[in-house]
Amino acid sequence: MRILHHLPLSPQCRQVRLVLGEKRLPYEPVIERVWERREEFLHLNPSGEVPVLVEENGLAIPEGRVICEYLDEAYPDTPLMGRTLAERVETRRLMAWFDTKFAAEVTRNLVGEKVDKRQFGRGHPDGNALRAGYANMRFHMDYIGWLAETRTWLAGPALSMADFAAAAHLSALDFIGDVDWSKAPAAKDWYARVKSRPCFRSLLNDRVSGFNPPEHYANLDF
Amino acid sequence: MRILHHLPLSPQCRQVRLVLGEKRLPYEPVIERVWERREEFLHLNPSGEVPVLVEENGLAIPEGRVICEYLDEAYPDTPLMGRTLAERVETRRLMAWFDTKFAAEVTRNLVGEKVDKRQFGRGHPDGNALRAGYANMRFHMDYIGWLAETRTWLAGPALSMADFAAAAHLSALDFIGDVDWSKAPAAKDWYARVKSRPCFRSLLNDRVSGFNPPEHYANLDF
Repeated sequence: MRILHHLPLSPQCRQVRLVLGEKRLPYEPVIERVWERREEFLHLNPSGEVPVLVEENGLAIPEGRVICEYLDEAYPDTPLMGRTLAERVETRRLMAWFDTKFAAEVTRNLVGEKVDKRQFGRGHPDGNALRAGYANMRFHMDYIGWLAETRTWLAGPALSMADFAAAAHLSALDFIGDVDWSKAPAAKDWYARVKSRPCFRSLLNDRVSGFNPPEHYANLDF
Repeated sequence: MRILHHLPLSPQCRQVRLVLGEKRLPYEPVIERVWERREEFLHLNPSGEVPVLVEENGLAIPEGRVICEYLDEAYPDTPLMGRTLAERVETRRLMAWFDTKFAAEVTRNLVGEKVDKRQFGRGHPDGNALRAGYANMRFHMDYIGWLAETRTWLAGPALSMADFAAAAHLSALDFIGDVDWSKAPAAKDWYARVKSRPCFRSLLNDRVSGFNPPEHYANLDF
């Protein structure tokens, strides 16, 4: 069986789980406590980070965007990268946007401070980081809303890796109750459409000790 | 004419210049002072960062890895991503490694502190960051040396985007005199092979006001 080494609230891992689900590729999720720096895991991925996908033939594929590229090449039946060169540029641009800019400006300041710090035993959340995270999120929600209003899906006419990249981050933030959906109606409509897809179910069933998601987290009609 | 908006010492930009050169795709380099946040440029790339490649048909492609994926799809004559699925995973794994891990642990601590801070008007280099950068670089040079000793090129049997990703970072560090080649013979041999390729010439001719590269920087027999 295909194995995914992951952490439940890591957006990169969530993105890969959504893509695996959308492509109907079965896998066994295995939680990897990366802070323990397990030697066997470092052999799979010298960077020591999740996600790492291990195929039945033994091929180990690390890193969110690398896994997404691999999955679209190896299993092209449900293409998620876009059709034309321009569509593929836009999908990858948004994957990079969420993976780097959104991650640095929002997710790291909120999920990083509230969840990762506790998991890694690195103390309490920093107030300045939280304030920056909330302030940055307002601009990012406006941007997601603008994309959702002007296009069918975030990167264009078709559902793509970009939707799963964005939804992965938002779902982790929603798990810790940090998304104010009332102020982002267009983003909320788009998120409701992604959230109602069957691939999303495994994310909505996540339980993480020490954290209780808000009631609307797993509700499709939030 | 194809235009590349770039900064001379940005590793992501250098990687794209090497790939464009290797694929013999002519382009006009245009220096973009990203810290001025020029409105026209923000329309090309809302993240406000270089590199951005603009094709003659107007298609704007931002972000190093996104541009590399695009160039290999749009101009497949000199393939640089690997042939088999496993080779492509390894190429992309190393691209991600240099783009995120090497960048955060080495380049940001040295090029970021010495060059970017001055360009952005953000004060003097931080001593702790410099010390961390030099310490981290030793491990990374060992890793590059190990890859170079066990494979023909960094990702496997063929020259790939991974070689250009690594060489882009090392060339920026070499420009500010921060690579001690005497302690990394295997990495040096590999780098000499990449450096002697015609695509490297434009990087070796770079001049950046306020910085004088060491004599060996542009020397193919360093």
